[in-house]
Amino acid sequence: MTYTAPSTAVIDSMLEAVNFDASGLIAAIAQQHDTGEVLMIAWMTHDALRETLQTGRVCYYSRSRKKLWRKGETSGQVQHLHEARLDCDADAVLLLVNQIGVACHTGRRSCFYRAFEPDGLVELTKPEIDPNQLYGHTHS
Amino acid sequence: MTYTAPSTAVIDSMLEAVNFDASGLIAAIAQQHDTGEVLMIAWMTHDALRETLQTGRVCYYSRSRKKLWRKGETSGQVQHLHEARLDCDADAVLLLVNQIGVACHTGRRSCFYRAFEPDGLVELTKPEIDPNQLYGHTHS
Repeated sequence: MTYTAPSTAVIDSMLEAVNFDASGLIAAIAQQHDTGEVLMIAWMTHDALRETLQTGRVCYYSRSRKKLWRKGETSGQVQHLHEARLDCDADAVLLLVNQIGVACHTGRRSCFYRAFEPDGLVELTKPEIDPNQLYGHTHS
Repeated sequence: MTYTAPSTAVIDSMLEAVNFDASGLIAAIAQQHDTGEVLMIAWMTHDALRETLQTGRVCYYSRSRKKLWRKGETSGQVQHLHEARLDCDADAVLLLVNQIGVACHTGRRSCFYRAFEPDGLVELTKPEIDPNQLYGHTHS
């Protein structure tokens, strides 16, 4: 499945249906399109969602760095969009993506690598890539 | 897989690792454990996550009603917990659940039922249950 970007006019029209919160954000869940693995959750502004829909490359908004966060720009671990979905309250999106490499800044495929178990928090997976290979020290 | 609740001491210890935001909330994604379908996203307080881990029945926090929201309490559409996972920043949880009936208050299995398509927002699924059968008028 190749992503086909809507026209700018259609994107702008669809964005009018999205309920950004008081800070101008919506939650964005990234899920690997073919395996169903939930990779991460992050945040998007109007501009981030617009760019994502226009380019087919996922762009979040970094609340800590207060700027657009083009996923993989530093690390190369980009997310190619297959489909974006909107929830019933229009305040969250589900991104079906093809994740190149790993989603997590720890070098793991998914950020959800710890489980609440009867004996405590348990790590389910090990890093696939040394985080030092991914970046100097910034998230991406 | 049956959920086994940790002891209260272990739960309290694990909760210390969770980063609730300035409003005391974390994001919680519910995913059907066997099919991988992402069902919904909602919010949890410390008390909501604690109750969920203790009982194995998913309990969110309703930001609009400002109280604990025991999913399915009104509608019967409960979520049985299989496993809860914590993300790398410890500010989001992924709940692997068995969703009885439908997750969405519109009567659909998943809340993410609209797709951003080249022609505009498209509904991917129809309600499986009449919302009027689920409740009078409150979300649950």
